[in-house]
Amino acid sequence: MNEFHLINEFLKPTLYEREDVELGIGDDAALLKVPEDKRLVLSMDSLVSGVHFPENVAGNDLADKALMVNLSDLAAMGATPAWVTMALHLPCYDEAWMKAFSQQFHKRLSEYQLQLVGGDISRGPLSITLQVHGFLPLNKALLRSGAQVGDDIYVSGQLGLAKLALDHVLDEGAKEPLLHDAFYRPKPQLALGQSLLDYANSCIDISDGLLADLSHILEASAVGAKLHYESIPVHPLLMSKMEDAREYALTHGEDYQLCFTVPKASQAIMLKHVQEKCITPIGTITKAPGLVIEDKDGKDISFNHRGYRHF
Amino acid sequence: MNEFHLINEFLKPTLYEREDVELGIGDDAALLKVPEDKRLVLSMDSLVSGVHFPENVAGNDLADKALMVNLSDLAAMGATPAWVTMALHLPCYDEAWMKAFSQQFHKRLSEYQLQLVGGDISRGPLSITLQVHGFLPLNKALLRSGAQVGDDIYVSGQLGLAKLALDHVLDEGAKEPLLHDAFYRPKPQLALGQSLLDYANSCIDISDGLLADLSHILEASAVGAKLHYESIPVHPLLMSKMEDAREYALTHGEDYQLCFTVPKASQAIMLKHVQEKCITPIGTITKAPGLVIEDKDGKDISFNHRGYRHF
Repeated sequence: MNEFHLINEFLKPTLYEREDVELGIGDDAALLKVPEDKRLVLSMDSLVSGVHFPENVAGNDLADKALMVNLSDLAAMGATPAWVTMALHLPCYDEAWMKAFSQQFHKRLSEYQLQLVGGDISRGPLSITLQVHGFLPLNKALLRSGAQVGDDIYVSGQLGLAKLALDHVLDEGAKEPLLHDAFYRPKPQLALGQSLLDYANSCIDISDGLLADLSHILEASAVGAKLHYESIPVHPLLMSKMEDAREYALTHGEDYQLCFTVPKASQAIMLKHVQEKCITPIGTITKAPGLVIEDKDGKDISFNHRGYRHF
Repeated sequence: MNEFHLINEFLKPTLYEREDVELGIGDDAALLKVPEDKRLVLSMDSLVSGVHFPENVAGNDLADKALMVNLSDLAAMGATPAWVTMALHLPCYDEAWMKAFSQQFHKRLSEYQLQLVGGDISRGPLSITLQVHGFLPLNKALLRSGAQVGDDIYVSGQLGLAKLALDHVLDEGAKEPLLHDAFYRPKPQLALGQSLLDYANSCIDISDGLLADLSHILEASAVGAKLHYESIPVHPLLMSKMEDAREYALTHGEDYQLCFTVPKASQAIMLKHVQEKCITPIGTITKAPGLVIEDKDGKDISFNHRGYRHF
């Protein structure tokens, strides 16, 4: 079984064919058409065995995790996804694993109306790198650098469960379905991101922890923030399992929810959507630099651990 | 040193900024503009430590090899390169290595008028995945599937040295400069590829060996080929080192020269360019399927080993 057979058997057969793909997998490169009134948006992200997921990961789990994590980056820009490319490193050829992986991957592509347009399979320690490609209107995007003093800060969903799952999955091999799916199947907030294009000044997806990722917005926008500790939305299961659940939720990543800032002028529109879109106001952008977290009595709370360190 | 510091220090500072890059490294995704009269061309390729290069590879060598190999895929389509994205897996942080890698990478980008628009650095066994992005006119491309019966088959350059270098480099750690550079600095045939857009019916770059790669053209085009054994251009250094140099050159890859087919009607134009572009006619496309290699007496020669097997 060589690379070309693997690509032909597992990557090339697609369930969903897009009209903007002139030439997909199978030549030296893919040929694609970007709509004239759109900008191309692209993002690349890798997951490495033993670092981002356990070595005995199931094929369908890795397929979901890799795709969802990458789509989340497009969600954070407000983009509409279109194409995917993949570099897969496999330590050996395991037919059952490859089948589970590719079936799940193609199923998800079809669900999201995406097409895999390029693939490379190499022998090597297990890892997967995806690049996702999407479109944005010419004059709109959600950037990290747009936060303005006085903006309200929001976060989508409920935080903390995915990373708890990672600790469980890696450390104990536990298979609690809710935890397992929180880690392997975070739902990329594509519809929310797109709906924010008209309102939000800045946006990021939470991969390394709310504090760490919000800090990227603050740095890029040259502003500060004040967060209300008790308003941070923590997953109830986490609350039931841990004493310091809220601190854990603030400082641990993998949730792939969106954190974004919206001018006060749009507060009424946002608050109308709080329930429907499952978003929570958690604080305000300040002129003073730095990230201050206040409890309900106005007392500053600080944490040592501010997010995932990659090295 | 975390991922963000590495990206900010080594990947973000660019020597060459393109006007079609609206937003490069530093947000959740890059924002890019494809010219209205062009198609987007993209290709992704990985190099893995211990498989594609020795584990003790120098940073500047890996930078060159990864970029050249990927640009070769664009050359084989006749495309003009524009942007690059990178996923780098590093077992640890080695500042001197990273400096050598990034300085060489940015130098090459500048030479080729490319911009790095996305980067991901993860902890993991050493590997590098690049995606290259380029442009093609709306109605032109060099595909594998266009070879026609009667086409002349050409190959650029002189074959065999790069793989010989790989065997030396991996097995003995030898540092003969000519061999070393043949392996780490294959020159992507971009100008040749672009000049072939008006003439060639099909094209591929030689990564796995001439026989293996030409076979991809034959399969995609549903034709066969007859090659003239003595006409295969073999590097003189290889001829001086090996008895079966020509067989070795046919069945070993890593040269990243172009193999392409041109209709007889353009033979005169091609032959005029044989010297200037360093291309050699090596055979003819046939109706009968399969790949026949004849020596000067018309005797069929066959080889067992037809190219690099990836698994």
